[in-house]
Amino acid sequence: MSKSQRFINHFLSHRKVTEELVSKISKDHYEYNPTPTSMSTKELVIHMLTSFYRFAAFATQQTPKQLHEEDAEINITELAERYTKETVSLIETMSDEDFKTEIDVTHIIGVKLPAGQLLQLALDHEINHKGNLFVYVREMGHTDLPLFVNIG
Amino acid sequence: MSKSQRFINHFLSHRKVTEELVSKISKDHYEYNPTPTSMSTKELVIHMLTSFYRFAAFATQQTPKQLHEEDAEINITELAERYTKETVSLIETMSDEDFKTEIDVTHIIGVKLPAGQLLQLALDHEINHKGNLFVYVREMGHTDLPLFVNIG
Repeated sequence: MSKSQRFINHFLSHRKVTEELVSKISKDHYEYNPTPTSMSTKELVIHMLTSFYRFAAFATQQTPKQLHEEDAEINITELAERYTKETVSLIETMSDEDFKTEIDVTHIIGVKLPAGQLLQLALDHEINHKGNLFVYVREMGHTDLPLFVNIG
Repeated sequence: MSKSQRFINHFLSHRKVTEELVSKISKDHYEYNPTPTSMSTKELVIHMLTSFYRFAAFATQQTPKQLHEEDAEINITELAERYTKETVSLIETMSDEDFKTEIDVTHIIGVKLPAGQLLQLALDHEINHKGNLFVYVREMGHTDLPLFVNIG
């Protein structure tokens, strides 16, 4: 299996869980936040989706597209589907060799990293914030929640 | 760098953040839980520490030691240090070849996995629950929180 396919499988084993959590969130909970200093639910979900997509664009040395309007009437379930599709499309273009390409992300995180490590960081970021989202969604009253990863 | 050293570095880049969060939790918050169906803070931290240690024991085909008494007067900061040390000690014993050894964990997660993938699952589990813990700790009133990973 190619490195990109293996990484996509790992990514989707978590993103599918993110999508399942997002699908439970009704519009009246979009502004929910656990504390005044927390991101709102909508902000958190958009942060997860856009961060991974941008990290994937950096890793593949592509210019990220504008995939949504900030001021539009947003449906986060649809947004998740759109960002997942575009993120996978970027990673699919990578050869095994491309995972070793050094990427300069000093302007974001202060370091240069091989593309593979940058993608790993993107995935760790997703899992971290999905861990936040689990608490948010439970606080909204949902108790029938998926396992943190889709082992499938 | 050996696979075990690379994995230990990745593990510690997250575990150090777990330890920093745990060090902020005072004893009067050990029983704090965000909702009635959530794990309490103490349960969550112990679950994170013992799960990683047991996954590492499975991955290295060692019998896990009893590292604490369930009914003891527990200090979760000290417990975190102890479990981190013992978890690293187990992983340090692994050769690059050992990462390919198939481990039967059908009794826990229903699958057989190479040891390296089992350790990856353990790390994803840690990051997920650390993501939960960030929300718990913010709800306790702490707002000066570390980045989700210690990039060093």
